[in-house]
Amino acid sequence: MAEKNVKVGLVGFGTVGCGVAKLILEEADSMAAKTGLRLQLACVVDVDTQSARPVKLPDGILTDDLKRLLNDDTISIGVELVGGTDAAKDVQLKMLHAGKDVVTANKALLAEHGNELYKTARENNRCIAFEASCAGGIPIVSGIRSGLTANNITAMYGIVNGTCNYILSNMTAKDEDFSEALAEAQSKGYAEADPTLDISGYDSAHKLAILASIAFGYEITLDDIFVEGIEAISKDDIRYGGEMGYVLKLLAIGQKDQNSRISLRVHPSFIAKDNSLARVDGPFNAVSIFGSAVGQVMYYGRGAGMMPTASAVVTDIIDVALGNSATTFRHLNVKPRSETKSLIEKIGDTVSRFYIKVMCKDRPGGVAQWSRVLADHEISISGALQHEGIGPDNTVPVVIVTHPTRQESMTGALGDIEKLEVIGGRPVCIRIVDIPEDKET
Amino acid sequence: MAEKNVKVGLVGFGTVGCGVAKLILEEADSMAAKTGLRLQLACVVDVDTQSARPVKLPDGILTDDLKRLLNDDTISIGVELVGGTDAAKDVQLKMLHAGKDVVTANKALLAEHGNELYKTARENNRCIAFEASCAGGIPIVSGIRSGLTANNITAMYGIVNGTCNYILSNMTAKDEDFSEALAEAQSKGYAEADPTLDISGYDSAHKLAILASIAFGYEITLDDIFVEGIEAISKDDIRYGGEMGYVLKLLAIGQKDQNSRISLRVHPSFIAKDNSLARVDGPFNAVSIFGSAVGQVMYYGRGAGMMPTASAVVTDIIDVALGNSATTFRHLNVKPRSETKSLIEKIGDTVSRFYIKVMCKDRPGGVAQWSRVLADHEISISGALQHEGIGPDNTVPVVIVTHPTRQESMTGALGDIEKLEVIGGRPVCIRIVDIPEDKET
Repeated sequence: MAEKNVKVGLVGFGTVGCGVAKLILEEADSMAAKTGLRLQLACVVDVDTQSARPVKLPDGILTDDLKRLLNDDTISIGVELVGGTDAAKDVQLKMLHAGKDVVTANKALLAEHGNELYKTARENNRCIAFEASCAGGIPIVSGIRSGLTANNITAMYGIVNGTCNYILSNMTAKDEDFSEALAEAQSKGYAEADPTLDISGYDSAHKLAILASIAFGYEITLDDIFVEGIEAISKDDIRYGGEMGYVLKLLAIGQKDQNSRISLRVHPSFIAKDNSLARVDGPFNAVSIFGSAVGQVMYYGRGAGMMPTASAVVTDIIDVALGNSATTFRHLNVKPRSETKSLIEKIGDTVSRFYIKVMCKDRPGGVAQWSRVLADHEISISGALQHEGIGPDNTVPVVIVTHPTRQESMTGALGDIEKLEVIGGRPVCIRIVDIPEDKET
Repeated sequence: MAEKNVKVGLVGFGTVGCGVAKLILEEADSMAAKTGLRLQLACVVDVDTQSARPVKLPDGILTDDLKRLLNDDTISIGVELVGGTDAAKDVQLKMLHAGKDVVTANKALLAEHGNELYKTARENNRCIAFEASCAGGIPIVSGIRSGLTANNITAMYGIVNGTCNYILSNMTAKDEDFSEALAEAQSKGYAEADPTLDISGYDSAHKLAILASIAFGYEITLDDIFVEGIEAISKDDIRYGGEMGYVLKLLAIGQKDQNSRISLRVHPSFIAKDNSLARVDGPFNAVSIFGSAVGQVMYYGRGAGMMPTASAVVTDIIDVALGNSATTFRHLNVKPRSETKSLIEKIGDTVSRFYIKVMCKDRPGGVAQWSRVLADHEISISGALQHEGIGPDNTVPVVIVTHPTRQESMTGALGDIEKLEVIGGRPVCIRIVDIPEDKET
């Protein structure tokens, strides 16, 4: 089979950009042998053309001039690895208008402006491929979009932020405080100097918006997603939850019920110790998907990092060059915003079980008072834990877990409990997520 | 977007055939909404047109006449779910010659005659899609072929036979004998009345041949694979291995070293308890793949059953109809047999660690004798276990695990040990497979 040359232009020469350049330069032969396509790096655009990078480019291809890419008609694919939303959006739009197909790892941009970009791509008869935007090297976008087409996808539960998972894993395994675990993650390069986007849960929410969109077939934006981060998690709660059989993970959750009502949430979640997601540790990602025909499918791998993310970008480049991405992109029907909005479940209506910790003053009638409040809100207790011994201010930590409860009822009860004189401080409230294991039947 | 009709003919109306018919009949609307393709079941061919099935077909489409499918030019895709190799091969060849693209779940046929069929497909400008042939509902074929193109795949470790995994899981969890666990698997429908193909390891080997072919890019046949089944496994060995930190799984293993030498094996394997594959229980399948860029990726899900397998078949039908399968199939370059054969590592050259159990007569000098034999073969012991108490014929079970050892040395040593008067019966020898966990760096 004759080889076909595919010229690629790269915008953004940071960590992932270096990985992509490295793969194209070093693996061109093996990829050509496998696919019949010979990738050629035609130019690399970055505002910084001076700093040393861990990959050596051929002379003359590094430039700070985007026009070199846009005006070169032999370049058919533009890779946007700028990151952020403003400049990156401009780059993608210009590349689409210049007739290039676009490959990107930019989850924030797609979560916030995806539909505008997809529309522009369609108008220009181009496609946007974004496997690398979710869960790094794990082929999860194609897994959902091409691998499970025959299924009505009813739920997805994902550990899609390696920073948070690294921090929570260390808090769990080493009984570390949040701040210690964060510092360690930063020292190892798993967390940014400003870790806000990760630990606030918003990075996970970006990925959930993209994945839920293709899984459920609705135009989903960040506004549809309830987001709570891991900043306030204490190691005590991880330990108490552990004693009750749970492991704490930051989950991105998408659920669709029989009436097509969709619940979209990112929050710290206690999950059963024997669930397969409970064993996903450190910087790894995993996504469990439930399909009507296939049951549970889980994907596991490295969700970030130079080479895993570059692997997904280059896979997309090949998929675009083969023409498969165009087909998939053209056939990706997503119901518009007008039909979606009314289907999104409000967080107050969400039903889940809860882990509640109160600091209760150690005197007769304490338990009676706050358990009375729960009863008044019709919240039923399914388990409780109180260790002997006295904590700060003559209080003892009392942990309970509840039966399924509406969020709104729980919010009301927590407000009332906080006002009780017998309770010290604000109650801690963490959702328990009962992931339906697809057990043998 | 206007819908495009896609007419499908189905050959083989057994369990999976019923699942495929059910999906096409019941999910046509939702799939059309997602993909723009409306699947239509044009005819279902089976020698048995009388038996009751769990799906109701429209009147007049069930027939025992393959010609109805072959001669209907409006049918573009033929699905072969006959199973076995003889009749199924004939059906596939006839469909290809009649100008149909072929979708199949037939791993035995592809493992034994795949290259002949692929050649016929290419000559007729058709494609064969076979996602359902490996690991049921898990999109592992597309995962390797499309999701990891940018990677040099160096190894794969798969639990790809649900029957064996169900049996070994029960032997492990319930301390059952092989025969008990097999009977339970049969009563639950996880094992056939004649379970030979599964428990002998040959079903796993069929899947390994297919997966290794696309992962490594070489034409691989069943003859290239060393196969050992689980029939001889005793619960004692599972228990002793467990005490030493291992879980027993039937693994399908493909490894490629830096010189492109390929090791292909299916055999009972002790793996470390904390490896992610060790936690894959019951009828589930999972495959861990190691790529040069992506690191470890694991896929997990139901490897068999009516609807999971049907999910993969219908996904392939859509992929074929979209034209993606044709592109992928056309670009699937596999090095021919002439280049492959010399690269396959002989089982005697394989290096692994070993679990050895000998029944040693309980008298002075026993250990000295057989450990002398190991030393003579330059086999080094890394761990040992001997419980107090006497077994049958005044012997005690002594378990050792070794450092990495060539299979040939081990085979020699075992022969010599068996001849020792101090040893009762044949030593038990189970390979220990050290799967390289892609740990945080």
